Amino acid sequence: MAEGRVVLEKAARAMPERIVSVLVAENRLAALGPVLADLPPGTPVYAAGQAVMDSIVGFPIHRGILALGRRPERSAAGLLAGLPDRALVVGLSAIANHDNIGGIFRNAAAFGAHAVILDAACCDPLYRKAIRVSVGAALTMPFARLEAGEDLVGALAGAGLEVLALSPAGETDLADLAPPARVAALFGAEGPGLPDDVLARTRTVRIPMAGGFDSLNVATTSGIVLHHLTAKGAA
Amino acid sequence: MAEGRVVLEKAARAMPERIVSVLVAENRLAALGPVLADLPPGTPVYAAGQAVMDSIVGFPIHRGILALGRRPERSAAGLLAGLPDRALVVGLSAIANHDNIGGIFRNAAAFGAHAVILDAACCDPLYRKAIRVSVGAALTMPFARLEAGEDLVGALAGAGLEVLALSPAGETDLADLAPPARVAALFGAEGPGLPDDVLARTRTVRIPMAGGFDSLNVATTSGIVLHHLTAKGAA
Repeated sequence: MAEGRVVLEKAARAMPERIVSVLVAENRLAALGPVLADLPPGTPVYAAGQAVMDSIVGFPIHRGILALGRRPERSAAGLLAGLPDRALVVGLSAIANHDNIGGIFRNAAAFGAHAVILDAACCDPLYRKAIRVSVGAALTMPFARLEAGEDLVGALAGAGLEVLALSPAGETDLADLAPPARVAALFGAEGPGLPDDVLARTRTVRIPMAGGFDSLNVATTSGIVLHHLTAKGAA
Repeated sequence: MAEGRVVLEKAARAMPERIVSVLVAENRLAALGPVLADLPPGTPVYAAGQAVMDSIVGFPIHRGILALGRRPERSAAGLLAGLPDRALVVGLSAIANHDNIGGIFRNAAAFGAHAVILDAACCDPLYRKAIRVSVGAALTMPFARLEAGEDLVGALAGAGLEVLALSPAGETDLADLAPPARVAALFGAEGPGLPDDVLARTRTVRIPMAGGFDSLNVATTSGIVLHHLTAKGAA
């Protein structure tokens, strides 16, 4: 379920065939014409008054635009097998906050990552709020989620990616890291961070911070890391 | 007004003399003992049941901990005059979103910025939600807000800071920028960005992004820039 004009525009461009239907507040319909014209012919567009819309949604929905879409069917194995030679992948472990997931997808798209692979403990990037915070990147960025018990590090390393694990206790300062040609950057939840068995099997990287303040937001961390891995001027 | 245990802990350490009183849900009181013991003797601590607390606050308040504090009285001129020789300042123009203000303060603290200077169009870093998102950094990071009509670029440049303006249309790639010894990094609202007259009077810097996706979140942008300006391995 996607909401808002910006996200619907992205969906109409990136995945028109997966849009099942659109629900629009009557007073938004006229202004939305150009976006709706991009949908495949025959896509149902329902218009309703605000009261009807609120009762369908179950709470007051201020954006006035909702689109129902079908999930893509993608496997981690398939995505990893299809990577280009120079590849940048984001790996996520136990990211359970929709704002953070959305922010990470936004950054992954901004820096041209090829895929995001999530473990089974992550929340859903296609939750409405996660899509919105991602500014639609959750709809356009290829991603797949592992099943419970599947090994995230093993999957990434098995695809020939050097796996970097971000941790306040990492060995290498990010700024000293020469970006590998095929690389996966792994992020865990704020607070607990990545599990020890992940850190033991990966190259651990830290972002140096001012005295004692060791907790950047994980979405911000992903932006800093992806910028370093893609910047031409980097080490 | 600050909420939650983490923020109260920071406030009790960083600005105990500015805490006026604390309101705690009865069922949180025992666990909060060590934090309350850090407050100056005589600081009023009120305990109430959840229903009373909700009625005082005006909505269901789940964190169960509120602290009322006095604002610090600081002027931009005073903060800028007191900077060390090597100085890092964050300048904010028209950042009107409390999540973004909070995120930027969190990053400013994480990377050891010396001050944040806001123009009059920014929202209040001491709004409850901004404090929470900043993980208390809004309470500990020195900041000041200019009056309407005061010149942000002029104030920063007048303090001998090289003023960098972040813009998708910037001339210099961030990764190519040698961090100046005395520097102010200037951020504007997502969408409109910094005004043209600001860009015309500053060194403009961009973060290269993948095709056409030119909108990082401004808090994430601040994290990327502050990391670059403070990282030892940087250019």
